[in-house]
Amino acid sequence: MKKVRTVEWKNGRVVMLDQRLLPNREVYRIYKDPKDVIAAIRDLVVRGAPAIGVSAAMGLALGAQKLPKDRFAKEFEKLCRAFAAARPTAVNLFWAIERMRRLVEANGQLSVETLRKMLEAEAIAIYREDLDANRRLSEFGAELLPSKGTVLTHCNAGGLATAGIGTALGVILAARDAGKKLSVFADETRPVLQGARLTAWELKKARAPVTVITDNMAGHFMQQGMIDAVVVGTDRTAANGDVANKIGTYAVAVLAARHGIPFYVAAPTTSIDLNCPDGSKIPIEERAADEVSHFHGKPSTPKGVKVANPAFDVTPAKLVTAIITENGVAKGGYKRNLAKLVRASGPVAPAAPRKRTKAR
Amino acid sequence: MKKVRTVEWKNGRVVMLDQRLLPNREVYRIYKDPKDVIAAIRDLVVRGAPAIGVSAAMGLALGAQKLPKDRFAKEFEKLCRAFAAARPTAVNLFWAIERMRRLVEANGQLSVETLRKMLEAEAIAIYREDLDANRRLSEFGAELLPSKGTVLTHCNAGGLATAGIGTALGVILAARDAGKKLSVFADETRPVLQGARLTAWELKKARAPVTVITDNMAGHFMQQGMIDAVVVGTDRTAANGDVANKIGTYAVAVLAARHGIPFYVAAPTTSIDLNCPDGSKIPIEERAADEVSHFHGKPSTPKGVKVANPAFDVTPAKLVTAIITENGVAKGGYKRNLAKLVRASGPVAPAAPRKRTKAR
Repeated sequence: MKKVRTVEWKNGRVVMLDQRLLPNREVYRIYKDPKDVIAAIRDLVVRGAPAIGVSAAMGLALGAQKLPKDRFAKEFEKLCRAFAAARPTAVNLFWAIERMRRLVEANGQLSVETLRKMLEAEAIAIYREDLDANRRLSEFGAELLPSKGTVLTHCNAGGLATAGIGTALGVILAARDAGKKLSVFADETRPVLQGARLTAWELKKARAPVTVITDNMAGHFMQQGMIDAVVVGTDRTAANGDVANKIGTYAVAVLAARHGIPFYVAAPTTSIDLNCPDGSKIPIEERAADEVSHFHGKPSTPKGVKVANPAFDVTPAKLVTAIITENGVAKGGYKRNLAKLVRASGPVAPAAPRKRTKAR
Repeated sequence: MKKVRTVEWKNGRVVMLDQRLLPNREVYRIYKDPKDVIAAIRDLVVRGAPAIGVSAAMGLALGAQKLPKDRFAKEFEKLCRAFAAARPTAVNLFWAIERMRRLVEANGQLSVETLRKMLEAEAIAIYREDLDANRRLSEFGAELLPSKGTVLTHCNAGGLATAGIGTALGVILAARDAGKKLSVFADETRPVLQGARLTAWELKKARAPVTVITDNMAGHFMQQGMIDAVVVGTDRTAANGDVANKIGTYAVAVLAARHGIPFYVAAPTTSIDLNCPDGSKIPIEERAADEVSHFHGKPSTPKGVKVANPAFDVTPAKLVTAIITENGVAKGGYKRNLAKLVRASGPVAPAAPRKRTKAR
């Protein structure tokens, strides 16, 4: 499988495919200022939890190059905080920042020049590990899918959401490559249309049969017996197996459960937050109203009418058939099993931001 | 409540508000050729089951004015068939055509001049009856809603879907006028955005608090305890209480059931098809792909990618808390209770088109 060039480190620059312009134009942005990388994360040039993590690591490596030597550690900490404020839900962002931050903290005795090189190497390592995790996760997941049938996915958890071949789409394509006869239904995924724009674009490139549907059609096609499995990604999965993912995932999970259709979550361990006890503690980002009220700059709601735009929702663990990681698959018993799978990747990072209260 | 001027008979012409241009422009079309009325129904200048019925009746009255006297009955029958081919799901279309057809059949001995006047009067009667049915249905439905809270609706079953004040929105506004403190969440209703464009427009005009959400958010807000009731319209309800309505209604009903939220269907008796035993026999219209793949003429899916576009789905009767008609409310026991409510309006029309097979 040829991988999508979502985010890369090239000659001391961060290069990103501008996903806002897909599928109509394929434009690469070259960033030399970390502030522009933060804006790229915030404005969805790059999105998808693993890709956000890689982008933040590369953005910090970029920033480190220019930070003044005399107050390097202090300025680096400031930059870490600026990256952490870009988006609230995907835990990979905080995980990647934490890895970079620890490197600086643990090596204060070294020269800034050396630190800069180490940070660059660490960002590239995070990128390579994500690529590798995608591959292993995809192979574990491929075994779960039926030998033929139709798989529904929501949003985009493909190569465009990662450094590699993707998580949910990686699973589907690995199953296809293993000889399974699968076609895909892709929810268009309002409001930002990651399914219609990105998942369809990737699957078309991979020559995998795909049909785009509006989000509200998924239940109908399940009722018609046309969906055999669901695979989605995750922005943050809590220690108990509650899954935060793109808005609409919860509805798909409820519908899948009603129709007895397995509901799989492709979750690299970098997106599992063992410090977060359950889904009620995951902060849900509220994005700008015009994502819902406008298309191509033109309004589709009357002027002045209120809209809501929560970007994620939480699917309770009991609706999740299995969680697929690069270290293996958990089928229920998530509290114990997720901890085991995450610890297989190394020590657990400290807590990422959480919601202050349960109420929204 | 001031009613929306959806479709009217004016000086021997059919006048329609062009709903395709809402909410940005309020343009009225004046039709003098019945073929243009058929096109208006097909192309969604007018939509909503009751409004389609009224439009077809007026279109037939319009056509009758010009049909040659020497083969009037034969040509009228041809015109009836042309109207019947405009859209397949809403039973009101076939119901209204049947009423006009019977008038001609029963009065073959009268002069064509007299028949034309009778057809015009019948179309206006259908319009007035719809207006009246809206009003009575709304009052019955208003009693079911809580004294305060938030009501979710899907698509548009407002004045724009009828000749009058609407069915589902009529219920909500009548409850408000009766002193209930209600706000509305409106699903935007992809692909044609009747919720974002039309329901929001009507509720804003009626000064009722409304929040537009994407279809895939409904489950999340139910999970958050923010939805107290659901009210939707219907394009055709079968004798057993299975409800065909805008695509996505089924998913809303499944989610409502999971959260213990009452799910009400506002169904004037003209939309109940006693000749149709259950939902599997209701033909589901498949509309053009570009409704899903394009926004404002610009593609949002990659070129050549397949899309599906079923315009309706079927909610099984067991998920429906109550069906509200202008003759009263049925709470379960639909087979017996719907027949009783429909017959209170007069004799039942013969069968409308149905699906030939169960499979889609």
